[in-house]
Amino acid sequence: MDRFLRRTTTLKDIARAAGYSVNTISRALRDKDDIAPDTVKAIKKIAAKMGYINNAAAVSLRLGHTNVIAVILGDISNPHFSIMMKEIEKRSRSAGYDSFLMNTNEDPEMERGAIQAALNKNVDGIIICPSQHDDSNIRYLIETGIPFVQISRHFDLPGAGYVICNDELGGYQATKYLLDKGHRDIVMLTGPSYISSARERRDGYHRALREQGVKYRSYMVRESSLTGCSGVIEKMLKEKLEFTAIFAFSDMLAWDAWTSLRKFGLRVPEDCSIVGFDNIQSRFSIPFRLTTISSYKAKMSTFAVESLLSVIVKTISPETTTLVIDTELVEGETVKRLGAGGDQ
Amino acid sequence: MDRFLRRTTTLKDIARAAGYSVNTISRALRDKDDIAPDTVKAIKKIAAKMGYINNAAAVSLRLGHTNVIAVILGDISNPHFSIMMKEIEKRSRSAGYDSFLMNTNEDPEMERGAIQAALNKNVDGIIICPSQHDDSNIRYLIETGIPFVQISRHFDLPGAGYVICNDELGGYQATKYLLDKGHRDIVMLTGPSYISSARERRDGYHRALREQGVKYRSYMVRESSLTGCSGVIEKMLKEKLEFTAIFAFSDMLAWDAWTSLRKFGLRVPEDCSIVGFDNIQSRFSIPFRLTTISSYKAKMSTFAVESLLSVIVKTISPETTTLVIDTELVEGETVKRLGAGGDQ
Repeated sequence: MDRFLRRTTTLKDIARAAGYSVNTISRALRDKDDIAPDTVKAIKKIAAKMGYINNAAAVSLRLGHTNVIAVILGDISNPHFSIMMKEIEKRSRSAGYDSFLMNTNEDPEMERGAIQAALNKNVDGIIICPSQHDDSNIRYLIETGIPFVQISRHFDLPGAGYVICNDELGGYQATKYLLDKGHRDIVMLTGPSYISSARERRDGYHRALREQGVKYRSYMVRESSLTGCSGVIEKMLKEKLEFTAIFAFSDMLAWDAWTSLRKFGLRVPEDCSIVGFDNIQSRFSIPFRLTTISSYKAKMSTFAVESLLSVIVKTISPETTTLVIDTELVEGETVKRLGAGGDQ
Repeated sequence: MDRFLRRTTTLKDIARAAGYSVNTISRALRDKDDIAPDTVKAIKKIAAKMGYINNAAAVSLRLGHTNVIAVILGDISNPHFSIMMKEIEKRSRSAGYDSFLMNTNEDPEMERGAIQAALNKNVDGIIICPSQHDDSNIRYLIETGIPFVQISRHFDLPGAGYVICNDELGGYQATKYLLDKGHRDIVMLTGPSYISSARERRDGYHRALREQGVKYRSYMVRESSLTGCSGVIEKMLKEKLEFTAIFAFSDMLAWDAWTSLRKFGLRVPEDCSIVGFDNIQSRFSIPFRLTTISSYKAKMSTFAVESLLSVIVKTISPETTTLVIDTELVEGETVKRLGAGGDQ
């Protein structure tokens, strides 16, 4: 079929070809229920054959909205984000919205570019997991007046709502679980401190130690990049740091720590216990299951879409959409109980 | 900021507020290099404050294109797809295109809905991994005349191009590797036979057996769903099927097979060797590395975008965009060499 034709087929052309009025064609193509289903089907078939496209750009200009949201995430190839994206796409499509996906690679410049592209496309709203190097991109979003919701991480700014899991609670649960199993020398393998979830999980780690009267030692907190921690683990081992357990910021880092420990001949959990965060394995089967924290990504994503839609449709104040979802510990195979005198 | 204002701020409003001519404002907002960088910055700031949005819908109507592509995939939460999506987004954004993501859950109805939504948005082109229950959705795409490229799976139809890996070669490499390690009783844990990559990988399995003079036994080919194979593995064990190795359709199924074998007390590779397909672990660190086939997803995705863009921009014939990328075996820890008399 000629592409030029596709761009220019009109309702009138279809009406002529199908033998119905333009009004009937128009109503059928918009699924109005006063047209018989068979007729709708027949008309749509003819319209498709003639290359008619219901021009969303024209509709958008007329109605002032696009039924499109933009989803701006750090790295879609990370299962943490791809699971969220799946749920966001599902929930928003069921509400009649399509989703742009934009990757930031955790880079503030790319993030700004993504925001700009989303605004240029005149999206109705944005779901964003902020890269958080600083708050200027979120401040910019507030200035533009576009409805948006932060997901998974947050800045507390007037005009900015968010849906996150209770990261402090998750950090507490992970650490308390290790303490209950007899561990005292627990490394917190944290993410970059500019990320709110990393700070809050560390706060939870502190609280659990404090509650059990275990002295907090700053050298037991080790900061890693989000993508890999082999250098950090190697440094810990070279320093001969004494530890029996690692609480990792994410399952990705937990797996990478495990991989690094194995390279040095250390076994999990025999030589070192590990607790992760995210429960990624709930979505696919990994033979050796991490003990981890469930952050309820499906719930978080669904709520984020619903919050955004209520800002878009009901134009309620964005702050009122803020929601914090409690986490839960999921037992796996990576934590060993220590006896009172050390190894049991 | 008032949302109504955001929709209606004009270049004239900004010109008045900023004290420049409308022409200067317009050129600054389009980053023309005859306006001083500081002025561009100042004007953009004022424009943002006033809620001015360069209305892409209006541009789209005027120019007849949207600089948007739709990416229609089976399941974005599957790393196989999310890694492809990351690369597609990266390559297309660098060419000035934004990407809609649409999940089909491998369901033809949802796939048709996604295609319809993409056409309604007037996207310039579509990258699709077809669900393949039948070819009607791809035939529909051909009828509409929209530029599109199939990725990872394919129908061979006039007017339909594709970018895939050489699945037959991958199946051959995996099977030959196991044969070279002394295995003869190799189960092919295949995907649904309506999927082209499943059929072609199985063809490669046949070729390797034939080449080595190993009799093909149809009961050694077991079909699994794409999402899990625990029932299939359980059935094999209950039947007391004799096998020393499994070649799985995907890494996801390989891990799930491993998980199932573990539940029955079987060790990998001591009791059963496994070869997967996709090399997902190239993107994240899993402590126990699969022996697998690299399908070069990054290359495949980049080529798919470039093929699509050449159909869109140069309006070349879609079939000429077809590309098949050779696979490669990646050694991991899941294959054991068998001695001539059985276990070594």
